[in-house]
Amino acid sequence: MELADRLGSEVEAQNWALKTLEHIGEGTVLAQQIFDMIGHSKFFSDFTRSDIQMLAKSMEIYRAEPGQTIIREGDVDDYMMLIIQGRVEIVKKDRNAMLQPMTSVGPGATLGEMSMIDGEPRFATCTAVDPTTFAVLTRDAMVKIILEEPSLGAKILIKLVTLLSARLRQTSSNLLHYMER
Amino acid sequence: MELADRLGSEVEAQNWALKTLEHIGEGTVLAQQIFDMIGHSKFFSDFTRSDIQMLAKSMEIYRAEPGQTIIREGDVDDYMMLIIQGRVEIVKKDRNAMLQPMTSVGPGATLGEMSMIDGEPRFATCTAVDPTTFAVLTRDAMVKIILEEPSLGAKILIKLVTLLSARLRQTSSNLLHYMER
Repeated sequence: MELADRLGSEVEAQNWALKTLEHIGEGTVLAQQIFDMIGHSKFFSDFTRSDIQMLAKSMEIYRAEPGQTIIREGDVDDYMMLIIQGRVEIVKKDRNAMLQPMTSVGPGATLGEMSMIDGEPRFATCTAVDPTTFAVLTRDAMVKIILEEPSLGAKILIKLVTLLSARLRQTSSNLLHYMER
Repeated sequence: MELADRLGSEVEAQNWALKTLEHIGEGTVLAQQIFDMIGHSKFFSDFTRSDIQMLAKSMEIYRAEPGQTIIREGDVDDYMMLIIQGRVEIVKKDRNAMLQPMTSVGPGATLGEMSMIDGEPRFATCTAVDPTTFAVLTRDAMVKIILEEPSLGAKILIKLVTLLSARLRQTSSNLLHYMER
């Protein structure tokens, strides 16, 4: 599959953290919930019901208890996730390998888009603070959507570009702020 | 055009800087040069000759003399650019409105992807250091490619996501480095 070669890296994804969590089932079991929380999600704000239904079919639902790791810094994984319920804290190791809290996010937030696309190791660790239900989209599922539903594929890719662009503007501004001190 | 609504903002693009520069012609006049410099460009490294030819048809070539502004911070524009020849310096205003050099880039580099996609004002100013030839891809041209050549559209979008992801990792690392000081 030519397109798949363009996404991700040579290293096989481990998806270690995912294997330690409870698997609820295919996304369709929560299609209605996913649709109901669209209002909270920047990511899905302009997706139609049929887009969401198609996407839900391509996603798997997992659940994490408080304290469980959903994404582990340095791991090679191949999925992004959408938080449906709960709260997730994001921490990153500093130079002394001490975990530094970065932020926490709730329903509607997406995490892990960078590694899903580029296959590079996870940049930070994500841990459930509350009982958390989330939907997982793997790179293979994404490639399948691009090939079989190019219009939905383009919508998702445009969303990813927009999201990363906004984060890059914010991070660059923060960096300049620190550099000017 | 439904897809166009998803890209960019409500504010009409000015493309002010572009209007001050010499317009060389359609990208096809430089399709061979674009193809020849693929080796230097991360962006196009896995595009086929037919991809490049199709893309070249959708681009316009411009030329800037040393000192001329190609992109102006704060402007609302709707294009990204690929440097074919020359060198471009990137500067950004600090809190005191003093221009601070950020970096400079040469042939193969792409600039302005963020505003092309999200329609937000330009983050920094790009000025030609040497006589510079570059190819411009507007948002409308990008939308047309996504609609008419979805496979090439997906390739470009995947490239954009990968590129922004790499920049975000780099910028976030730099930010953490400063924050730890």
